[in-house]
Amino acid sequence: METTEITIQAEDVRQAAVRIRPLVRHTPVLFDEVDGRLVFFKCENLQRGGAFKIRGASNLILSLTPAELRRGIVTYSSGNHAQAVAIAAAHVGAQATIVMPEDAPRIKMESTRKYGARIVTYNRATESREEIAAGIVKKTGGTLAPPFDDPRIMAGQGTAALELLEDAGPLDALIAPVGGGGLLSGCATIAKAIDPAIRVFGAEPAQANDTFLSLAAGKHVRVQPDTIADGLRAPEPGRLTFPVIQRLVEAILLVSEDEIRAAARRLLLEWKIVVEPSGAVPAAAVFFGKLPAEIRSVGVVLSGGNVDFEEMVQW
Amino acid sequence: METTEITIQAEDVRQAAVRIRPLVRHTPVLFDEVDGRLVFFKCENLQRGGAFKIRGASNLILSLTPAELRRGIVTYSSGNHAQAVAIAAAHVGAQATIVMPEDAPRIKMESTRKYGARIVTYNRATESREEIAAGIVKKTGGTLAPPFDDPRIMAGQGTAALELLEDAGPLDALIAPVGGGGLLSGCATIAKAIDPAIRVFGAEPAQANDTFLSLAAGKHVRVQPDTIADGLRAPEPGRLTFPVIQRLVEAILLVSEDEIRAAARRLLLEWKIVVEPSGAVPAAAVFFGKLPAEIRSVGVVLSGGNVDFEEMVQW
Repeated sequence: METTEITIQAEDVRQAAVRIRPLVRHTPVLFDEVDGRLVFFKCENLQRGGAFKIRGASNLILSLTPAELRRGIVTYSSGNHAQAVAIAAAHVGAQATIVMPEDAPRIKMESTRKYGARIVTYNRATESREEIAAGIVKKTGGTLAPPFDDPRIMAGQGTAALELLEDAGPLDALIAPVGGGGLLSGCATIAKAIDPAIRVFGAEPAQANDTFLSLAAGKHVRVQPDTIADGLRAPEPGRLTFPVIQRLVEAILLVSEDEIRAAARRLLLEWKIVVEPSGAVPAAAVFFGKLPAEIRSVGVVLSGGNVDFEEMVQW
Repeated sequence: METTEITIQAEDVRQAAVRIRPLVRHTPVLFDEVDGRLVFFKCENLQRGGAFKIRGASNLILSLTPAELRRGIVTYSSGNHAQAVAIAAAHVGAQATIVMPEDAPRIKMESTRKYGARIVTYNRATESREEIAAGIVKKTGGTLAPPFDDPRIMAGQGTAALELLEDAGPLDALIAPVGGGGLLSGCATIAKAIDPAIRVFGAEPAQANDTFLSLAAGKHVRVQPDTIADGLRAPEPGRLTFPVIQRLVEAILLVSEDEIRAAARRLLLEWKIVVEPSGAVPAAAVFFGKLPAEIRSVGVVLSGGNVDFEEMVQW
């Protein structure tokens, strides 16, 4: 059997940037000197829906035909991707169906439901969310919007780096957090096309280091994530995202749970912005000296800001 | 004795905008629909030093001659203005001397001292900060940089509204918080010059309603402020700021302490930004329906973000 590598090109990211414009905020870039290095934070925590996920979700949904939209959008996620799909689907008048664990935080269910999405719950211990979503797709003819492993999602997420580099100008390096790798693969693709000399890094919790281990092994390695960075708990890199990361990303920088919390707290108190633990992971890599010393300027994607007050006060 | 009214013109604000550019961030504007109205938040909490105060301080300091700068800058403030003067003075290599109450929060003293400012403490109960500052000016020949009652300060603060209106386009209304009135008088001056139809409002804590009462009385009324909005505790409007406010501001909107806290919390959780209570006062006016209903678009100056973690967790 012949396998065709499905991947994305810089042009896909550029097209996505035009396509998603009606739905997505051009988020601000905050910059300052940190330990003698210029740091540019791309504030996707200030994005619509509180995270970069609206970029990929709206790129996928705005790519669909009217007939496809009428059959609805299906996804599985307990987090920011669910809300992003709900927002983008509502924008085009399509029905979104979100498969969520029955024990998902009520606040996340409500913030998804308020955009008109239908929520289907499942038992995390006994059922597979992928199978349930596939079943709904089979029955309705709807379109699956996977959280990361889709070229339209990857290209959409890459628009964060496109805006960052347009606003900040040339940078020595770029860092994005890695969960399934949608954001990192999209950002690496456009960043390397704009400037082949830019060094691209991923940042991962040490306690969810599947991409780090996979890069070292040269193949998919599965882990059991145990991290407060709930957006980065994918147990292994994506099938489509991983080859892009292998090709374009120099290294994965690992940070501890304490470093993640301290970075989130520092962003809150010094930078005056709310960044959820997953979003603070690449900032932790900068604050705690994980970057090569010779890098004088770095762009950092702060991927989201959705965090409960109760969690925030514990940072 | 003839009195000459010292006031500011829109042109002063425009000149300030050019003068302060090396020192001041062009802060982002975040916007969204709130209760059917477009709201544009000018994020001075993300400003250098964490507040708009750097605008006025750097306009004053960058207006001085080299000879004046050599004699130093003197001010009295326990808050954001102190830090702003320290930053701007350090930028031009001038010595700043800040008169602060001896019981000022240690964190505020340290964040001022780290920019190289000299701190002179006084006893709040028995001494006058204005007299101490005047004594230092007399001895050193330095320049006094008052917190609000100075045309260079007022013009500098007005640049926040200039940027906001340039970025947001025409708006029905503009709201800024009122302490001594430096920010509001500067913002009103430029806003009315750009668009005479714009309606300009101040926002004040009900428990520090000196400008509200003064406008009603047609003369300076002194109150004893008792509010968590520590930046708005001036007991009466400024001598120079008040006539500008009388001429250009339609009304002062009053908000309760609970409304201030709730607004700060909402900005934190929904908008993902840290805004100190003083900065949240005009947002509270919007969130709690204090604006005339027919206003469809409003610019809101979120004046600062300097708040301790311990205070934030109580919102």
